[in-house]
Amino acid sequence: MVWNFSAGPAMLPPPVLARAREELLDWQGRGVSVMEVSHRGAPFMAMAEACEARLRGLAQVPDDYAVLFLQGGASTQFGLLPQNYARQDQAIAFQISGHWAEKALSQAELMRSCRRVPMDGLPAGDDLAYCHRTSNETVDGWQFHHDPEAGGVPVFCDMSSDILSRPLDLTRYGLVYAGAQKNIGPAGLTLVIVRRDLLGRCPDSLPTLLNHRAMAESGSMANTPPTFAWYLADLVFQWIEDLGGLSAMASRNAEKAGALYDYIDNSGFYRNDVAVDSRSLMNVVFQPPEASQCARFVAEAEDAGLMGLKGHRAVGGLRASLYNAMPLDGVRTLIQFMSEFARRYG
Amino acid sequence: MVWNFSAGPAMLPPPVLARAREELLDWQGRGVSVMEVSHRGAPFMAMAEACEARLRGLAQVPDDYAVLFLQGGASTQFGLLPQNYARQDQAIAFQISGHWAEKALSQAELMRSCRRVPMDGLPAGDDLAYCHRTSNETVDGWQFHHDPEAGGVPVFCDMSSDILSRPLDLTRYGLVYAGAQKNIGPAGLTLVIVRRDLLGRCPDSLPTLLNHRAMAESGSMANTPPTFAWYLADLVFQWIEDLGGLSAMASRNAEKAGALYDYIDNSGFYRNDVAVDSRSLMNVVFQPPEASQCARFVAEAEDAGLMGLKGHRAVGGLRASLYNAMPLDGVRTLIQFMSEFARRYG
Repeated sequence: MVWNFSAGPAMLPPPVLARAREELLDWQGRGVSVMEVSHRGAPFMAMAEACEARLRGLAQVPDDYAVLFLQGGASTQFGLLPQNYARQDQAIAFQISGHWAEKALSQAELMRSCRRVPMDGLPAGDDLAYCHRTSNETVDGWQFHHDPEAGGVPVFCDMSSDILSRPLDLTRYGLVYAGAQKNIGPAGLTLVIVRRDLLGRCPDSLPTLLNHRAMAESGSMANTPPTFAWYLADLVFQWIEDLGGLSAMASRNAEKAGALYDYIDNSGFYRNDVAVDSRSLMNVVFQPPEASQCARFVAEAEDAGLMGLKGHRAVGGLRASLYNAMPLDGVRTLIQFMSEFARRYG
Repeated sequence: MVWNFSAGPAMLPPPVLARAREELLDWQGRGVSVMEVSHRGAPFMAMAEACEARLRGLAQVPDDYAVLFLQGGASTQFGLLPQNYARQDQAIAFQISGHWAEKALSQAELMRSCRRVPMDGLPAGDDLAYCHRTSNETVDGWQFHHDPEAGGVPVFCDMSSDILSRPLDLTRYGLVYAGAQKNIGPAGLTLVIVRRDLLGRCPDSLPTLLNHRAMAESGSMANTPPTFAWYLADLVFQWIEDLGGLSAMASRNAEKAGALYDYIDNSGFYRNDVAVDSRSLMNVVFQPPEASQCARFVAEAEDAGLMGLKGHRAVGGLRASLYNAMPLDGVRTLIQFMSEFARRYG
């Protein structure tokens, strides 16, 4: 038995992988794999439609928002959002919560004027195209725990690492986007949910595959989409439905992260330095007393069947990623290992 | 038993799918799926390196060419090649062989001055950044059977539908690219092979994920790559090696298409209107005497376990796609069905 705490590509729900394996060679009794059918054939189109409907139900996506299933990752969108939604004479505001917000900013700065703004409240300014935020920082273990306030400049949010982990009020956002490889499915797919009126901003001069309006008009099928990833996303959405939807996910995630933070805070050995009300429920970062103990921790954890616990190379330390697919049992096993490690080396 | 003649996403080699299924839940004995491991971890990096080496061996990729494994499809590259390799004051030449060449041209025209040039020989012009061609036209059933002549303006070639179907002389090209979903793997991955000196043209102002030079410098890992598609591509490359490499593929493909064209030409019922020396070995288009017989043909073929035979919606008619994975037995079964259909309705 292996518990996989990787930050992404991350653990997928075991029932999803089991079903994918079950029907890998014979999808819907058609005698072929879902990877081998035309995306424009009726069976795949029906799956894609059902998948979008399922997501709309789960996340309560309002009718005036379009849902796109795009290729690439959230980082691809770092370079595309400015071109689609900000004119050359407009600026973009960035709330800098950590590593990934900086990355998004650095790509936007190649093309548009950008402005760093405070994380609480929304910036004002007639020249602002939108305000960008990152809802959860996988590297820093930091998370916004509230949707932005209503009104003002549209908020565009990178939710790659916490989408579908809790209910959200999409009306507070102009656009949200998320790479699949944490809470949606395998790498290679990016979900975009965007208020339809904003699609009017996308310039005709943008190539079709980079143009959100063109992708919305084609139902995300201007070219061959990543069909297998899309299919797996649908299985993940079904799994979330089966467990009770986003409220159930939120309770489950709060319980998991709560147990781990409680243990860390009371361990007298490990520490987490993130402000308590901004701690991430998805990525719990922690340090042993000596930085030199990290490598030993990772090695012994792997021997014990706990993988993916090394902190991001940009910050070091240790990190346990607790996305939707990780069950409470995995967290309990981790806590037990951590407490044995602390006893041995404390 | 189903024979899948889809134009793409197409049939995958059965041994590849069987192996993928076998190890879907437990890759390399690690207790997790290949979809669940970090792309930056040693196991995935080793797979990616071995995969590139395998491709370099199969296609005899010269050392001064970089190999990129990118997200998206060939259509994504239609919009990216002009931005990466042609300055604003340069023009791009297009050899218009059919449907997909027109598509590539229409995207390039959004950004650069473009010129239609003859299909034989190479165009001259100091203002030309490159000459674009499409080696095989899936919709029209048309194929270039020779690499371009040496020297002159660099040739950029969309080989989405015939890459790895025969040996090729890469030194005749500046860049070749191919969406995976015919001869490489599942949709969502695009292979690019580019002469390294051309990467010097990619402007710094292009976002990282759209910038071929940045992607080359990062080993195609500037962000999380589509790891499962990359892994499946490696299995497909292994399968081609096992069958004897690209020369073996070429013989196999010539035999398959040869048998089908022979049958069509002598059937007294079906016809193929493509000039004989430009007929595609990958996509055989054909028509029954009456256009109205196409729907009946497709329906009866499906009942007989032969799928994906409907022609592209842009041209109608019928089409059998015979990519690498389709064995001669499938073609024989198709010919038998075609001859029974001709007998019934001829």
